Amino acid sequence: MAEGAESIRRRTGGRSARIREQVFGAVLQELVAHGLSGLTLPAIAQRAGVHPTTLYRRWPDPEALALDAIRDRSMTQVAIPDTGTLAGDLTRFLTDLDAYVRSPLGRALLALQLTARGEADRIRQAFWRERFELSAAMIERAKSRGEIPATTAARPLLEFAIAPVYLHAAVLGDGLDQHSIALFVRRTIALAQAG
Amino acid sequence: MAEGAESIRRRTGGRSARIREQVFGAVLQELVAHGLSGLTLPAIAQRAGVHPTTLYRRWPDPEALALDAIRDRSMTQVAIPDTGTLAGDLTRFLTDLDAYVRSPLGRALLALQLTARGEADRIRQAFWRERFELSAAMIERAKSRGEIPATTAARPLLEFAIAPVYLHAAVLGDGLDQHSIALFVRRTIALAQAG
Repeated sequence: MAEGAESIRRRTGGRSARIREQVFGAVLQELVAHGLSGLTLPAIAQRAGVHPTTLYRRWPDPEALALDAIRDRSMTQVAIPDTGTLAGDLTRFLTDLDAYVRSPLGRALLALQLTARGEADRIRQAFWRERFELSAAMIERAKSRGEIPATTAARPLLEFAIAPVYLHAAVLGDGLDQHSIALFVRRTIALAQAG
Repeated sequence: MAEGAESIRRRTGGRSARIREQVFGAVLQELVAHGLSGLTLPAIAQRAGVHPTTLYRRWPDPEALALDAIRDRSMTQVAIPDTGTLAGDLTRFLTDLDAYVRSPLGRALLALQLTARGEADRIRQAFWRERFELSAAMIERAKSRGEIPATTAARPLLEFAIAPVYLHAAVLGDGLDQHSIALFVRRTIALAQAG
């Protein structure tokens, strides 16, 4: 009986996860095609092949759904690594970030937020606040390992680490090899160690 | 007679400069509205209120005109300062850059180049190559004044200086005050002095 119930939960979870994935894929496509102001729950439902009620039940409005989708995709494409060293974590993180910012979706989302106003700007701020809070785990673990001073503020250090990746991937559009990534990682750790 | 000729030259120069300004304004509006692939010389001429022949005479194609317009606007909005010190130059430069990247035109051009392919990408590369060459004057003057080692490579140092400005103005969309600019300037000079 217990086994049967668990099996049902697992199937339900699998189906639920699949629907989420379909819906997130659809909302990102709609977002890139029409922008945030052109986003509607019925259009997303149609593209995802689900009933609109499925969306209304979980998300109060298209903006909440968009934020959820962007957050989900970012966490999948640029996960917060835990390799055992700050250098290892930052190398993985900046490498993934570089690939994501260069990807068609990453570029389209950045382009959108550049011309975003009002509600779109509120979503952007919410996204970044959460993103920096989650990424701070890399810095906190480095502190607890004694790699960098316990007084290091996580967000300014993370900003310092990601700035050159965005410059090259999004602005200059030139290549960024492992040698450059390694240089950015060394500079970030040196900055933290200098206090 | 000489005075008369000079006066005519001045008027001619004035009219020519005014037409350039009208044409550049028109091409930037067209670029933001339709993208590089939607750019045509007749449409630009109409918006600028000049005869298409005026454009055909000076620019072989819309892409060359677009590059000229973006280059001109960048040099006007973010001039290469010569204040007498590297700290003074970088402070002025990063402050102007921050304002430009946040401006509607700056954001729109960045958004465009994020989704640019092919010819647009070639224009972007040409723009940045020239832009870094011109900006290197700040670094070269600092070397000749003995402020930083003569072996300092200009482009990587300039990239280091501008990266956080783009991160905040274009990606995070949060504020950047004079305190932050001063910090980026100090870090840039420290990096150069460390060799």
